[in-house]
Formats: sequence, C-alpha cells, structure tokens
Amino acid sequence: MLQRLDRTEVLRRLPFWKAAEGREAITRSIVFGTFNEAFGFMTRIALAAERLDHHPEWFNVYNRVEIVLTTHDASGLTDRDVALATLIDKAADARA
Amino acid sequence: MLQRLDRTEVLRRLPFWKAAEGREAITRSIVFGTFNEAFGFMTRIALAAERLDHHPEWFNVYNRVEIVLTTHDASGLTDRDVALATLIDKAADARA
Amino acid sequence: MLQRLDRTEVLRRLPFWKAAEGREAITRSIVFGTFNEAFGFMTRIALAAERLDHHPEWFNVYNRVEIVLTTHDASGLTDRDVALATLIDKAADARA
Amino acid sequence: MLQRLDRTEVLRRLPFWKAAEGREAITRSIVFGTFNEAFGFMTRIALAAERLDHHPEWFNVYNRVEIVLTTHDASGLTDRDVALATLIDKAADARA
Repeated sequence: MLQRLDRTEVLRRLPFWKAAEGREAITRSIVFGTFNEAFGFMTRIALAAERLDHHPEWFNVYNRVEIVLTTHDASGLTDRDVALATLIDKAADARA
Repeated sequence: MLQRLDRTEVLRRLPFWKAAEGREAITRSIVFGTFNEAFGFMTRIALAAERLDHHPEWFNVYNRVEIVLTTHDASGLTDRDVALATLIDKAADARA
Repeated sequence: MLQRLDRTEVLRRLPFWKAAEGREAITRSIVFGTFNEAFGFMTRIALAAERLDHHPEWFNVYNRVEIVLTTHDASGLTDRDVALATLIDKAADARA
Repeated sequence: MLQRLDRTEVLRRLPFWKAAEGREAITRSIVFGTFNEAFGFMTRIALAAERLDHHPEWFNVYNRVEIVLTTHDASGLTDRDVALATLIDKAADARA
C-alpha cells in the first residue's frame, strides 16, 4: 500500500530538502524572524499532519525549526513524506 | 496609566479597521484561503496577545476571522489596541 | 450521504450542549482558568477539526470559548457534529 | 541581573526533570496519548514562553515531547528556567 520511493528521486523534487545522515529520511532547517513566526508555522504544519495522518519529527529553538520526514511503516520515504514536505515548503514561503 | 485614545484618530492610523457598532471598539474581518491558514494566523495573534497581555475578542468560522479590539479597563481604545492591531495587520499580510 | 439527525435526540447524548437559538445547531460555552488554557484547548479542537474535516463556529474572549456546531451541507446536525462535540467535551474535561 | 542557580538545587525543586548531558541544562521527556494532546500542550508552553520571554529547546515526534531548558545569557540555569519548568509540569499534569 505504502510504496517506498527512491530518496535521490524525492530530493530532486524537493530542492529545499537534503538527505538525513544515517537514516532513510529527508531534512530541512528553516529560520524565521521570531519565535512567533516559527510557532505559527509549526501550528500550520501540525494541522496539516493531522489531516494527512503523517507526522514530522521536529526540533525548535526560538526562531529555528528543524524537520525530519520519513515513513516508519515503510522504513523509508513515501508519497506521504512528499505531501507533507510540499505543505511545509508552501507554509515556509509565507514568511516575509 | 492607560490613556484612552480617540477612535477617529486611531482608525486614521489603521486603514484595515473600522468602528465596531454600538461599542467603543474597532473591528477587522480577514478571509484566508483555508482553515489551516486562518488558525496559523490565530496562533500568531494568541502568542502576541500573551506577550502584550492584551487579548482580542474574536470569532472564527472556517477561513474567516473577525476580530474586535478594545481595552476594558479604559472603557475604550488605548495604545494596547493599536499595538495588537498593528501585529494583526502584519501577520495577516504574510498570507500569500 | 450526510444523514441529518434529530436535534432533540442529539442533545440527549450531549448533556453539556444546548440548542442554538434560531438555527438548527447546538452550542456550548466553556470557561477556562486563563487564556493560555483556553487557547491550548482551541488548538486541540482545531487539530481535531482538520482530521474530521468538520469545523466549528467559535468565539473567544480571554478565558471563555463559545462554540456552535452544525453541518452546512445538511442544513442541520449530522454524525460529524456529534463526533466533534464528543472530542470537545473530552478536551474540555482535561482542564482542572 | 540574571542570577545563575545551582543545578543540583534546581533539580531538587523539580522532581520530573533531570540534568542534561554535557550541558548546564535540565531536561524532561513527556509522553502523551496522541499527537493532538502533545501539540495542545506545546501550544500552551509556547504561549507561556512568549509571556516569560524565555523559550525552550524542544523536540517532538508524534505523542512524545522532549524539552531542554537553559538560559543562554547566563550560561546556565536561572529563575526563568524554574518558572518555565513549573508551567510545563502544570500543563503536563492536565493530561488525563
């Protein structure tokens, strides 16, 4: 059901993302102007994650958010990661 | 301490806002593309409200947010309303 | 597809809710200790709403949240309203 | 202004926290029932952080939240960390 995708191929479609070290996952780090902006963004991604039923691993300190995406059930990347990454890129673009 | 401001003067500085009917308050209605965007915006305003210790009265249905600002302790508008309105306008501008 | 439910029957199952005036809808008002608690609750409901693809009409001022539920596509109440109301009651119970 | 506190003393007052490895910081890991609960909690802490003007370093995956607190300006722990940790403990207790 969950078809595993080739990471090199996925990264070609997601220029803001790179391979996570030591894991079959992709990662993006985003710096906002303030914590207010960073957490507003995180809320949008949380809402999208519930809608997609696919959740990020993420770290935040002040205005910086680091996100790792992978699909545990597939031990690698799937369409769900691409869908969530695309929403993340769109929401991150909304910052000034 | 909380100096009450003249509403006509306040509205001159806040072109997106208008007088609330029947109350010494100002109001703005904002339509976003989705609930996701609307609630991301609301979270940013909630964070700003806690920082300013000044909270909105607001209504949301799906992609629409209606906000009323006033300062209860002053029975009218104060610098706090102008500060929160300014942050609201800035966060609303971030939508694409 | 969306079967309209009888409001009297729905309210029998949801003791914290009452009939909204002049509309085929149900409403609940909840008072929290602080804005912090109220908005934490609202975020949980926002996440649930995206998951259910069914959104509330709601109003907030400081520690008070007023919610109205109805299903526009059915011009009345459906299972979606009961599902969202049940989640709201559960999340509201977490306060104390 | 920001007086640095002794970590052993701080941990005596905060039984849910432990020393972070390799840093003058304290850490707590909290597991919730769902992502919904975890992110509702995170929103409450984000609001508190803006109010205190003191922000956590935190990591989340699904229902688990890991938090590290320290005061960069003091290169160690201060009253701000104790205040934020106390709010975190209180909000975490609200889960069923």
